[in-house]
Amino acid sequence: MTYREFYRDRRVMITGGLGFIGSTLAHQLTALGARVLLVDSLIPEYGGNLFNVHGIEDRVRINIADVRQQSTMNYLVRGQDVIFNLAGQVSHIDSMQDPYTDLEINCRSQLSILEACRRHNPGVKVVFAGTRQVYGRPDSLPVTEQHLVRPTDVNGINKAAGEYYHLVYNNVFGVRACSLRLTNVYGPRQLIKHNRQGFIAWFIRLAIENAEIQIYGDGSQRRDFVYVDDAADAFLRAGADDVCNGQVLNVGGIEPISHRALVELLTSIAGSGRFRLVDWPPEKKAIDIGDFFADSSLIERTLQWRPVTTLRDGLQRTVEYYRRHFQHYVPTTASQIAAL
Amino acid sequence: MTYREFYRDRRVMITGGLGFIGSTLAHQLTALGARVLLVDSLIPEYGGNLFNVHGIEDRVRINIADVRQQSTMNYLVRGQDVIFNLAGQVSHIDSMQDPYTDLEINCRSQLSILEACRRHNPGVKVVFAGTRQVYGRPDSLPVTEQHLVRPTDVNGINKAAGEYYHLVYNNVFGVRACSLRLTNVYGPRQLIKHNRQGFIAWFIRLAIENAEIQIYGDGSQRRDFVYVDDAADAFLRAGADDVCNGQVLNVGGIEPISHRALVELLTSIAGSGRFRLVDWPPEKKAIDIGDFFADSSLIERTLQWRPVTTLRDGLQRTVEYYRRHFQHYVPTTASQIAAL
Repeated sequence: MTYREFYRDRRVMITGGLGFIGSTLAHQLTALGARVLLVDSLIPEYGGNLFNVHGIEDRVRINIADVRQQSTMNYLVRGQDVIFNLAGQVSHIDSMQDPYTDLEINCRSQLSILEACRRHNPGVKVVFAGTRQVYGRPDSLPVTEQHLVRPTDVNGINKAAGEYYHLVYNNVFGVRACSLRLTNVYGPRQLIKHNRQGFIAWFIRLAIENAEIQIYGDGSQRRDFVYVDDAADAFLRAGADDVCNGQVLNVGGIEPISHRALVELLTSIAGSGRFRLVDWPPEKKAIDIGDFFADSSLIERTLQWRPVTTLRDGLQRTVEYYRRHFQHYVPTTASQIAAL
Repeated sequence: MTYREFYRDRRVMITGGLGFIGSTLAHQLTALGARVLLVDSLIPEYGGNLFNVHGIEDRVRINIADVRQQSTMNYLVRGQDVIFNLAGQVSHIDSMQDPYTDLEINCRSQLSILEACRRHNPGVKVVFAGTRQVYGRPDSLPVTEQHLVRPTDVNGINKAAGEYYHLVYNNVFGVRACSLRLTNVYGPRQLIKHNRQGFIAWFIRLAIENAEIQIYGDGSQRRDFVYVDDAADAFLRAGADDVCNGQVLNVGGIEPISHRALVELLTSIAGSGRFRLVDWPPEKKAIDIGDFFADSSLIERTLQWRPVTTLRDGLQRTVEYYRRHFQHYVPTTASQIAAL
């Protein structure tokens, strides 16, 4: 049985299921015949968007709930075979303004989910969406899982704690769990209504709007990017295979690219947009990590995963998606804007 | 000016100030002429004990408060020159039974203190009591600060997050902070009324009571121990010197010793007590980390600190202290026992 066949008739719950990666997983899982439950709080500022399940609405169950609610989690986890645990607050900047909310959503909420599993469904498998952020500013490149965890902002700390909880619940309570440390993920269905959730989606929006993209510093900073379908494939592999229980695995891009080269590629694909180099805003510089790209050889050895979508192909599909569905991702009416 | 002269007339706040290490610091600081404020919640199960400041009651201010209380912290941090941040829940076992309380006390509370400093006293220096627990089961010995952070229990995760917050507030908000990762600390004024806060204090109590000490496994497991006066000296050095801002520094013992050899030394010094090897209880084995001893060369290079008290001398003083003051540390009356 392949990892894709594994999901036929499986009960799969996705927290943050109406978000960017969660909904992409939902599309893949319904195609594989899984019985999918999407749990999402639809907090307005965050990435949940009902349009993300357009086309599969009738083939998934949607439950609006907050992962911080212990009693709700206790109920929802029952009977699930696999949980893809992607709910979270992903803004670095917000976490520095309001560290408590970030703590509640990224750290305490993981305990709600894991305690629910421990008490009510200890046989479930949980795959956590970790992040390359936990490494902070790299000592060496590419970054392996042996690199020190040294977050540069509150969000990174809380994501690290959330990840560690999964490993401890795996090791101590036998709730099978692993964490995928995602590098910069991009693609259709990402939040582009504001710019506080990572720069790539925001750059794509600006390119589509034929606007000016501001690049901080000289644009030489390098990052790696992974297309969302590839990232979702890593989750599917991890959810189906016990070999990765208790592990953290990097999920990185094919090769690093500088911010400037990325924007040049993006604007040439879009046929619109332009860029300008600007000085770093001090509050962003303070939590910036410089060059970053991940070594994904561990997950390739362990789960035979590697990224397959080139940046050119991925950006092309992404630009096309947002051009076709722009109004579902960017508020255009007065009432939509007022709701932000 | 030496680091000891630095403290004359300084305003110094100690969270967990009625606890084991906090009160030892208070004794040293009053002798150095500091103006000391002790903040402690005196939660019955934890290590705070008014007798710990016996002899210096009139030379310290004591404020009973919980570090989780943001408004209280906002008030108390004002005007302080140095904060020794030692408040915490230190039971591994409790953290696995009730992870939320551990999260509140060891993780969220650090945000209360740091947010209070950021908003109301950004010029203060904070020294955090970290722990060797964050390393989990060592990959190699002795353990340096370059070892991966990989906690084996919820308490270790929350202590790691609390430590990371200090580093981020140092790096991003300029609230000068560092963390001392303490190995097993022992000495006078440690909690010995129950056995959920580390084994060495409990062994000392059993030896004094001429009782049987149970050693798990074959007793060959090695640990390093640091005498509390030496540990307090590391805090004094770190609080007085900006060279360690943003750093984590191991505070380890002189040399490792096996559990069995430790107990043999202890019972020979005490002239009482005996031991027996017993099987590991499964819930303790699940979060045990095997051999551990720290490499303290970084703090020796950075702050010229090294442990100076031999285990023999330290145990001797500790046994004498508890023999003299036993009734202040172990409940003997019915009402004291009922209050546990």
